[in-house]
Amino acid sequence: MNIFEKRRENIYDWMARESVALVMVEDCEGRRDPSLRWLSGQPGDALLFLSVERKSLLIPWDINMAMLYAQSDTIIPYADFGRQPIKALVGAAEFFKIPSSSRIEIPAITPYPLFLKFVEEATNFDILCRENGVGKEFEKGRAIKDADEILMYRKLSAMTSEIIDLLIKNVLSGKIKTETDAAIFIEIEARQRGCEGTGFETLAAGPGRSFGIHAFPTYTGGAFAVQGLSILDFGIKYAGYTSDITMTFAKEPLSKQQEKMLNLVEKAYNLAVSMAYKGTATRDIAAAVDTYFGKSKKTMPHGLGHGIGLQAHEAPAIRSRADNEWILEPGMIITLEPGLYDPVQGGCRLENDILITETGPEVLTNSKIVRL
Amino acid sequence: MNIFEKRRENIYDWMARESVALVMVEDCEGRRDPSLRWLSGQPGDALLFLSVERKSLLIPWDINMAMLYAQSDTIIPYADFGRQPIKALVGAAEFFKIPSSSRIEIPAITPYPLFLKFVEEATNFDILCRENGVGKEFEKGRAIKDADEILMYRKLSAMTSEIIDLLIKNVLSGKIKTETDAAIFIEIEARQRGCEGTGFETLAAGPGRSFGIHAFPTYTGGAFAVQGLSILDFGIKYAGYTSDITMTFAKEPLSKQQEKMLNLVEKAYNLAVSMAYKGTATRDIAAAVDTYFGKSKKTMPHGLGHGIGLQAHEAPAIRSRADNEWILEPGMIITLEPGLYDPVQGGCRLENDILITETGPEVLTNSKIVRL
Repeated sequence: MNIFEKRRENIYDWMARESVALVMVEDCEGRRDPSLRWLSGQPGDALLFLSVERKSLLIPWDINMAMLYAQSDTIIPYADFGRQPIKALVGAAEFFKIPSSSRIEIPAITPYPLFLKFVEEATNFDILCRENGVGKEFEKGRAIKDADEILMYRKLSAMTSEIIDLLIKNVLSGKIKTETDAAIFIEIEARQRGCEGTGFETLAAGPGRSFGIHAFPTYTGGAFAVQGLSILDFGIKYAGYTSDITMTFAKEPLSKQQEKMLNLVEKAYNLAVSMAYKGTATRDIAAAVDTYFGKSKKTMPHGLGHGIGLQAHEAPAIRSRADNEWILEPGMIITLEPGLYDPVQGGCRLENDILITETGPEVLTNSKIVRL
Repeated sequence: MNIFEKRRENIYDWMARESVALVMVEDCEGRRDPSLRWLSGQPGDALLFLSVERKSLLIPWDINMAMLYAQSDTIIPYADFGRQPIKALVGAAEFFKIPSSSRIEIPAITPYPLFLKFVEEATNFDILCRENGVGKEFEKGRAIKDADEILMYRKLSAMTSEIIDLLIKNVLSGKIKTETDAAIFIEIEARQRGCEGTGFETLAAGPGRSFGIHAFPTYTGGAFAVQGLSILDFGIKYAGYTSDITMTFAKEPLSKQQEKMLNLVEKAYNLAVSMAYKGTATRDIAAAVDTYFGKSKKTMPHGLGHGIGLQAHEAPAIRSRADNEWILEPGMIITLEPGLYDPVQGGCRLENDILITETGPEVLTNSKIVRL
């Protein structure tokens, strides 16, 4: 049984318990869901149907690509259903001979107007669209990496760390002078190592722009790692999975306030890592960092971290919001990324990728605050 | 009155006619809608509320960035609403003193489970979530470019054409040898010209991979523009707007079938352009190309084209599906991109950006099938 079948088996079990006859997963333009890749190996642009009779049907836009990448019991081109999700759902229900009145679950991100159309067209069935339905099962399954995924993340993290070291070397030697130099360097190094590219648009912001949490534009021809605080936030993508780290380059002379920001962020980061043990509520870690910054009358304008995987941001959430109920478990791979930003002083953020093991946090990547 | 105010004025008029007291626009992770940028200049990561009393309220994640980029009557940080869309909506209704029982419209892409929560929390109001509501107004407004946008597209198209010419030159000189060489070249040339980057991930596929409509991965270290058919599909992004063109590099010796594919695609492209006059149903153009390919027993596995703008794919649709009712109008900027794909022979696609004027199609970019 391959890894995709194993993952589907867990979902079939859940479907039987929940009396859901058919599940639809959609990963198309406008509605992306990498759970499709997690369950089938198909990189995207397809629908996947899972029947409680323990069979899968993949419906891809590009049948040639699916033949190369996908693992599914059956594959039928999307064109056979007029490339329309409702026709595909009705077709899948016929294909699997789903009894009428059965429960069919569609993705929780289905827009309300489209949901109404599903209900209207698939009148024989009970159409479910739930926040805590099958999507939550995918989220929980993906949050705890299996042995294959952890092995893959070790390789991905090692590549990420190599690139971090090369970035430092090339900034020091003067080969990387601009934001674009840094971003392009990462892109080339990633592809050379067999990566699919970067996991998200690299954010490279020199001192004049680093105050933005997400600098806009993501990188420019402007100077990088010159006097003051520069931020470099990137991830590389391998076999669909992304890393996500942030470096801060701090070039002297620095102001007292800049020194203080660096010091606070470094200590907040160490505090967060020291708390990242299984059984800990991620909200407590984020709240501890908020409290720590608060003592110096500083506020962090974003969450403390997040899970990584087939998406750059996925479960578990690591933030202090009251509705965050995630508890750390072995196999989770998360980022911790405290940061402080000031329109005059610039920004500072430190982020690494961390595997939660039975015995504690294992920092997988070697990002740091680089003093120049 | 700046261009954003002008666009909002049209929406206020529509709101008055439709008796909608408040409109919410959301452009955040997971639910992107560049209409926010079109209406406010804010590049993203924000909510925008429009009141029928002709006032706007922007609620950005990053207040520093909003102060630099956004044009709105009022700006309040998202943190003030716990970074939660429902709290922001309730807050905006209070801010504008919207009378109870008023109609408030939320985005048509709001997921069904989230829609239910809006209805539950904003009990004083009539919450609308409609496919043919305000989102359709944004879509129609964005589909027909105003004078500012057309001027900007002339500049963007000229830059795109420069890069096309440089790509040909560098493939001929041997400087571009791999898919990565081509993609990185585009990225650097775009940023050097002040672009925000590429409009979407560049697709560079050498002869072994060009059969994929959307090659996966998007580009690799593999050889590009060697014997056979290579495809290069890219756009550059300037001030938020993207171009979108596809080149095919055909290096001899070619098989008879490859020659036939190139010939068919070129003729289909010319046929499509020759029909792109105002008043023409885009479905008719796409159907004509389908019929043309059909005569040679070929099928195109994707739509013929689409509008471009703040998104790489936006209105009008140019495809033969029965539900496509778009009619060409002056000011529309569209792509036409016939293509044929074969797992053995490879793929061939030709795509340019075309402005619909009062007098006919004006091809803005100079992409072509390049014979080597």
